[in-house]
Amino acid sequence: MKHHSIIDLIERKRDGGILQPDELQWIITQYTADSIPDYQMSSLLMAIFIRGFTGEELAAWTEAMLHSGDVLDLSHIPAGKVDKHSTGGVGDKISIPLAPMVAACGVAVPMMSGRGLGHTGGTLDKLESIPGFRTRLDKKEFVEIVERLGLVLGGQSETMAPADRRIYALRDSTGTVPSIPLIASSIMSKKLSEGINGLVLDLKTGSGAFMTNEADARVLAETMVGIGQSHGTKVVATLTGMDQPLGVEVGNANEIAESLDVLSGGGPADVVEITYSLAADMLLLAGVDTDRDVAITRLSDAVNSGAAMEKFQEVIVAQDGNPDVAEDRSLLPVAPGRYELLAREDGVVTKCDARDIGVAGVRLGAGRERKEDLVDPGVAISVLAKIGDSVSKGQPLAAVAYGDENRLQAAIPLLERAWEFGEGADPPPLVIGRVE
Amino acid sequence: MKHHSIIDLIERKRDGGILQPDELQWIITQYTADSIPDYQMSSLLMAIFIRGFTGEELAAWTEAMLHSGDVLDLSHIPAGKVDKHSTGGVGDKISIPLAPMVAACGVAVPMMSGRGLGHTGGTLDKLESIPGFRTRLDKKEFVEIVERLGLVLGGQSETMAPADRRIYALRDSTGTVPSIPLIASSIMSKKLSEGINGLVLDLKTGSGAFMTNEADARVLAETMVGIGQSHGTKVVATLTGMDQPLGVEVGNANEIAESLDVLSGGGPADVVEITYSLAADMLLLAGVDTDRDVAITRLSDAVNSGAAMEKFQEVIVAQDGNPDVAEDRSLLPVAPGRYELLAREDGVVTKCDARDIGVAGVRLGAGRERKEDLVDPGVAISVLAKIGDSVSKGQPLAAVAYGDENRLQAAIPLLERAWEFGEGADPPPLVIGRVE
Repeated sequence: MKHHSIIDLIERKRDGGILQPDELQWIITQYTADSIPDYQMSSLLMAIFIRGFTGEELAAWTEAMLHSGDVLDLSHIPAGKVDKHSTGGVGDKISIPLAPMVAACGVAVPMMSGRGLGHTGGTLDKLESIPGFRTRLDKKEFVEIVERLGLVLGGQSETMAPADRRIYALRDSTGTVPSIPLIASSIMSKKLSEGINGLVLDLKTGSGAFMTNEADARVLAETMVGIGQSHGTKVVATLTGMDQPLGVEVGNANEIAESLDVLSGGGPADVVEITYSLAADMLLLAGVDTDRDVAITRLSDAVNSGAAMEKFQEVIVAQDGNPDVAEDRSLLPVAPGRYELLAREDGVVTKCDARDIGVAGVRLGAGRERKEDLVDPGVAISVLAKIGDSVSKGQPLAAVAYGDENRLQAAIPLLERAWEFGEGADPPPLVIGRVE
Repeated sequence: MKHHSIIDLIERKRDGGILQPDELQWIITQYTADSIPDYQMSSLLMAIFIRGFTGEELAAWTEAMLHSGDVLDLSHIPAGKVDKHSTGGVGDKISIPLAPMVAACGVAVPMMSGRGLGHTGGTLDKLESIPGFRTRLDKKEFVEIVERLGLVLGGQSETMAPADRRIYALRDSTGTVPSIPLIASSIMSKKLSEGINGLVLDLKTGSGAFMTNEADARVLAETMVGIGQSHGTKVVATLTGMDQPLGVEVGNANEIAESLDVLSGGGPADVVEITYSLAADMLLLAGVDTDRDVAITRLSDAVNSGAAMEKFQEVIVAQDGNPDVAEDRSLLPVAPGRYELLAREDGVVTKCDARDIGVAGVRLGAGRERKEDLVDPGVAISVLAKIGDSVSKGQPLAAVAYGDENRLQAAIPLLERAWEFGEGADPPPLVIGRVE
């Protein structure tokens, strides 16, 4: 590989110039090999943050990160291989019912998920509330499970896209996180290294999302779809609202329970709607169906026949969890303390703030305030009144299961301010837009 | 000191916001104490590079750097204490005749100089070509010499403005050098830590200067004068041209010889003009004179009486050098090899490129290509034809003293392209403007 001067490249980006694909590739390779120090990379990242990337720069940067480590080769699996990624929200358990439903319809789903970040929950943390469930799988085991079952639910491997992991940690400590090209390339480099041929994105926007602004979320969606196009992978993005939590349950074990409800044909209407919508996109991307209504019917059949639940139980067994949770919810952990937040007035809910409720969940122990914190799988917030609901004074707005009294006291002020009431309000739209 | 979050501060500057004086002070203190790592500082420096500093931010940043280490207290010296700084050029030996002339007129000159940087020479390197001359002085010795003689010619102490030294090294490797606020604060923090009450700046502009563009040099001048004002130190800046070398001699020992010529009442007209002009500014700043013409006469008298040369010899003795160089130039080193660049045509010199000649000097060994290189004090370029001079084919344009044949061969192509000829040209103006 041709040698470049990192200082020249930093200076060019600093002054708003364009870096060539081989230069971006060189930067990522050298940084991953410890030949470019953090202090040069952070200076470059700030210049990228402020000056941006062209579409071509972004594609080359993402390709370089994606090839910085192992890339899965699933080409021997005949089924279409499609994954789903959400930018994260509160009560967002969609992946959990969705993945077995889609796999039951014949799509291979090599899903790699993350942990809770900030006020949002993480699929791995939720899955680990199933007794015994193991998300840490090596590459061989990951491939073997998806080959055998058409579904695997693992964590990000350390050996995949290592450049992204290092760059993400550096961005986190150098004020360069909320950059659309850096966010898009981070997500896409990880997802594209899974060896998939389709990707469904759920871009959350609203108070409980990282992108509170819809316009930013739309640009991010377009950016990620563009990266997919450059790479030759079909990507469909849906913008969904995250002003209030999704579904009723916010936590870990209680979100698994709600996911099991969906797999049993029940569950809250909003969770069901988004699960089926994104799952249908996956069937269409995989080529299982060409018509959306047919895909929805196929998914519904997979639930009603019990095939989706059976697929989930198979994967639980493969990953050392107890599959009996499907029939016996009492096998899921529940924190012992009980608290109810009651309405102080009559009225219609005009606000049920996803971020406040998410932070309250973190304070209870559902998420981490520091990286090294342990998650308490049994703490739970059940959101009992949502925007547009009429409530009477004294009616419960939220039911909390808590483990530690001090943590409850830290959470209550956030819950108390999360709800607002007025004359009337319509439930906010769930699906805001699509980019494909 | 109140604790701040470095990430919050980086983010604010990244987004074009303003940092408060206590926040800037905290950043410099924490960085100097190794509590802020390089990778966070370089990210902040890039944000400062692109977003800039307000005047108030710049003043606070400079004050913080200036107080990051020792600050000289020369308040017990009754004379006005004035230093001079040049942004660097080719053949720029002005400090060497100027400092003894000014000191001979009763101004205390605690001069701290630097080494050659890039294609430009350094006063310390030049002084060290005087046999025995020592520029490395500790704080006590530095103060003692200026107290006793009214003049000292030292290097920057390691204990003064250490934050600047570290930040400069980081900027050098992270693409954040050519930023006017960062350059201005770097120079001013070092100079203001010398305990002076006046500073004369020589801002070079043209091909052989770091600021090739006059408008940038003017903004830098205004910025540094502004920092001086905030600090309560009078600063006068002169913009001078650096399209061609200053004087005849480019090197080290040969520039000392030319400086001795000026102290003896001779020397090239351009060197004499700028030396007297800046020296007069120093006398006015120190309050020795209130009238410029009176100051010029006083300086001229100091030269003609021999007082200026005597002052130089006193300081040479105090710093362990051989003062006999004043009378016997053969004590100065000269490289053995001889080469002449001859004019290939008749004509008037239209270009005599300072940068090319400076780089040729570095290739000969007058400066350093790497930090660890040793300077050869005896290599020399004598510039024999300057812009506006008529030359005949075969007439020497430059005379070179070299030590190593390979180095000469590396220098020749630069010398060959440095001169251009045409129908006619006026010598470029020496003094372009003033900011006070």
